[in-house]
This record gives sequence, C-alpha cells and structure tokens, in this order.
Amino acid sequence: MTEPSTTLRTGFVGLGVMGRPMATRLLAAGFPTTVTSRTAAAVQELVRAGATAAATPGAVALASDVVLVMVPETADLEAVMEPPDGVLGGAHEALVIVAMGTHDPSAMPRLAARAAAVGAAFLDAPVSGGDVGAREGTLSIMVGGDETAFERARPVFEAMGSRVAHLGPSGAGQIAKAANQLIVGSTIEAVAEAFTLAARAGLDVARLRDVLDGGFAASRILEVHGRRMLDRDFTPGGRAQLHAKDARIILALADELGVDLPGFTPIAAAFQQLVDEGHGDLDHSALITLLERRSPGATAD
Amino acid sequence: MTEPSTTLRTGFVGLGVMGRPMATRLLAAGFPTTVTSRTAAAVQELVRAGATAAATPGAVALASDVVLVMVPETADLEAVMEPPDGVLGGAHEALVIVAMGTHDPSAMPRLAARAAAVGAAFLDAPVSGGDVGAREGTLSIMVGGDETAFERARPVFEAMGSRVAHLGPSGAGQIAKAANQLIVGSTIEAVAEAFTLAARAGLDVARLRDVLDGGFAASRILEVHGRRMLDRDFTPGGRAQLHAKDARIILALADELGVDLPGFTPIAAAFQQLVDEGHGDLDHSALITLLERRSPGATAD
Repeated sequence: MTEPSTTLRTGFVGLGVMGRPMATRLLAAGFPTTVTSRTAAAVQELVRAGATAAATPGAVALASDVVLVMVPETADLEAVMEPPDGVLGGAHEALVIVAMGTHDPSAMPRLAARAAAVGAAFLDAPVSGGDVGAREGTLSIMVGGDETAFERARPVFEAMGSRVAHLGPSGAGQIAKAANQLIVGSTIEAVAEAFTLAARAGLDVARLRDVLDGGFAASRILEVHGRRMLDRDFTPGGRAQLHAKDARIILALADELGVDLPGFTPIAAAFQQLVDEGHGDLDHSALITLLERRSPGATAD
Repeated sequence: MTEPSTTLRTGFVGLGVMGRPMATRLLAAGFPTTVTSRTAAAVQELVRAGATAAATPGAVALASDVVLVMVPETADLEAVMEPPDGVLGGAHEALVIVAMGTHDPSAMPRLAARAAAVGAAFLDAPVSGGDVGAREGTLSIMVGGDETAFERARPVFEAMGSRVAHLGPSGAGQIAKAANQLIVGSTIEAVAEAFTLAARAGLDVARLRDVLDGGFAASRILEVHGRRMLDRDFTPGGRAQLHAKDARIILALADELGVDLPGFTPIAAAFQQLVDEGHGDLDHSALITLLERRSPGATAD
C-alpha cells in the first residue's frame, strides 16, 4: 500500500450506507477530509470522527484535492456536479473528481468533458464489497478515466480498497461495475434458487450451505448473502432498488453492444418485480422471498 | 481428520477424470484398494500405484468393506450394480456401497432397497470440487442414506474430501448436489456473460477478473473457470454434456417439488444447446463460446 500523502486533502459528498464508512476510512488513514451530505446526522457523525463540514458540494471541492462523490443515481450525480453549488462550482486545476457510485457508463465521458472545461479531472471509480468491505477498507475499486489523475488519487483509493485497478478510459470503471453487478445479481438468484429447491426437498439448508462452501459453488455471495437468506435478515447491505437500477444499466449496455444475456435478463426482471411489489428497500438477497412466493410452501429457514 | 482404519478395505468402480485421482487418494491414505474400470489403461495406472485389479464390479465388492462407484449416468450406475457381475453380485453384510456420481435423486432409495435386500448398505455421496479437488483431496462430499453406514464409511470420505456432510436419508446427497450444480452452472453463465460484455466494451478481461475477485463477485468459478475462459482452455474438468444431464435432473426435481427456477431454466437450455451443437465434450466453461456465437464480434481473449 502506498503511504498516504499528508498534503492530499480529500472531500466526500454523499454519506449513505457506503459513503459513511468510506469517509471514515479516509479520516483513519490521516487525510484531512471535508464532507457534505443531505443527511445532517451523517455529517455530524463524520465531524465527530475528525472531518470538516461544508455547506455545499462546491465548497467541498474548493477545499479538496480529491473529491469523492457517492450518490446512488446518475441523476443524483449530475445534480451534485452542477454549478454554482455543485462540485463543478468549486472546481480548480488541482482537483480530481471521483464518481464512486454505480452509474450509466455513457454519462461518464460527458461529465469528464465538463470537468476538463474548468481544468479539473474526472474519474469513475465504482466499488464492490458492500458496507462490510467499506468498513474494513477491503473494497474492490474499478477505475476509468485519465491515468495521470488516477495515479494522483491512488493513495486515496488505497485507503478504502484492497484491489484498485485502472481499467481504461472514462466509463471503463462503470463497465467493470456492470460486469460485477451482473455476476453478483446472478449469483444471488442462483443461491436463492438452490436454497429454495433444497428446503422444499426437506434438506437442512444451513448444513447445505456449509458443504457447498467447500466446492465449486463457493462464493462471497454464498457466504454473505446466503447467511442473510438463512437468517431472514434483509437489512441492506445493497438495496434491491439499486440493483434493479444497475440491472437497467447492464441491459442497456448489452443492448448497445449487441451482447445477448440469456441468464441475466430474467434476473433483471426479478429485481424489478421485487421493487414493484414494494420491497425495493430490502437487501438484494431478498430475491429469495420472490421465489418463495412463486413456489408456495418452500422456505429456506 | 479421522485416522484411516487399516482394516477398512476399499473398492473403486469407474476410473475416469474424477475416479482416478479419488482412488489414488485412497491408496495414498493407506487403504487396501481393489479397482475395476472399462478403461484398461486406468486400471493399470492404479495397479502401478498399489491397487489390486478385479475383473468385475461384483469381484470388487466381494473384496471390499466400502465400494465406491463413480460413473457418469444413472443408467451406468444401475448397470454396474446389476448381479451377477455387478456390485450387488458381490454384496455381503459388511459392505457399504457408495454412489459418488451425480444421479437422479429418486433412483437412490430404489437402489438402497435392493442393497438392503442382500444385507448391504447403500449411500449416495456425490462430490463437488472437480478434478482439482479430487487430486488435492479437498472435495466437498454430500451424503444421503443410513447414518450408521455413513459413520462406517467416514474415514474413506475424509481421505478424499475436506468437507463431508451427511444431509439426510437416501437421495439427500443427490439433492444437495443438484443445488450445487444449479449454483455452479448459473455462476459459469454469469461469469461468461460478464466477460463477454466487458470484452465487447473493450476492457482488458484479465485485469477485470482480478479486480472482480476482490469484491462480491468473487467465487471459485470466477477463479477456476474464469481462468479457463481467459486461456480458451476448455479441456474438461467438468464436461458440458454431464452438466446438461445434471440440468435435466435439477429441472425434473424442481418440477416435482413445484419450485420455479427463472434464473436456471435458460441456463439449462444453454447447456443443452452446447451439446446439440457438438461441444458436449468440452469443459462446462465453454458456455462462453455459445454466448460469443450469439453475440458476433465479442470474445473474452
């Protein structure tokens, strides 16, 4: 791991389930950090941990060398960027702006061009590993955009993640994240189907999970989300609603590139159905409840 | 691990990709082992490693306390059991017969009853972990059937696997294996779709695989089968044809239990299509080639 530069000032915009522990890691690594969020309580929590509060994203940018934006929707990101109060309103030549949420890849070059117009750099750097990885500083961070800007921001990434990779030009991080979410969503559905089938056949699903974990079925999802399914604990974690949004990004990207996704397409529909039935705020592992409703009598607990 | 009993004599019927390294582990663990197989070269290899050759499965059974049968199809298993030359022809009161292939769960109680009629015990004990796990003795072994017989055979299982679980009555091991194959097949398809999408978008897929491996997309499949996809090395491993057979078992079980499998159903069809197009002898990770043919221009290498 690179030694964090004591002169690199960081900023954080968006202190939700992911942003809060990520900003906490920056403070713990010794970066002077300025924060803002729609949630006053989250700002206060970070201030108690040593952060400086700012009124607007623009003010955060003005006080920072690297400003990280962690908001859920691409529209939220665009709103948070907009001058005069947004990040671009406080942009300067030393600034690297980093979009860490999961966003539409095609929006990234557009935002990078707007940043470049005011002399700033813009990277897309979505993450995987969930709130657990954010707390432990073990996220995977997938970066797209200018490589020089990536190298400048690298110590900041390394304070939050154990795998940091530059994957290509603006948008490449988001494409990698789309690939990630495709695998994560598909694996959640696979574990949910396997558990539902086994439960319905009368097997002890906890014992099944343990033995599956030693073979080719082993995955981080079987471990973490399989546990959530067994415990019937669907506190997010990753909200189903966000995964439904990610699924739309994945299908749009596949459509644009002419790639057929026979496995993921019905899973995208399942996430949307979960949202439509009013369960969008549950963890994405709640896909199993949809299966159970479709297959009366089958439960994994 | 339990100390192998020096008096427990093992037998092995079926020395294919999986059976050969599994029988080799038994010899290495000190079990006197009698073997037979349709392939004379495989028998010779095991004899050189210290095994005794027998002419028929019945002769193997006669010389053994625990006889392991590792054949691909349920029909093969039934043929290998059939007296006078089959395992049941050499059955005796001290014998535990173990079916280690992936078979139709509903056939297990039927074979167990036939074994019981001649005083022998019958367990189903399919495995996961592939030829790699077989060589290293780190298989997951999922056992169904009489618990006393399971305890008698346990030292033999522990010579081949690092996770050994008794999951319930006759057929329970096969149901667990169906759950395993559902997850494995779905995860292979998910990794193949993610790689194809990313490759088509211009990403370096090797670098992508490395960063995905640090987040929630991490799995044994991403590691092992993802590597095979990158290397375009579709030497089995697990043949697509066998996974197509497993898929039929899974769908039949789901149908019988009234469980809806929206994610796995199209993947079962993809495995069958791979077989129909003449690629059944390739490793199951060759699912990616089907996707690439459906999405012209996209390759992961």
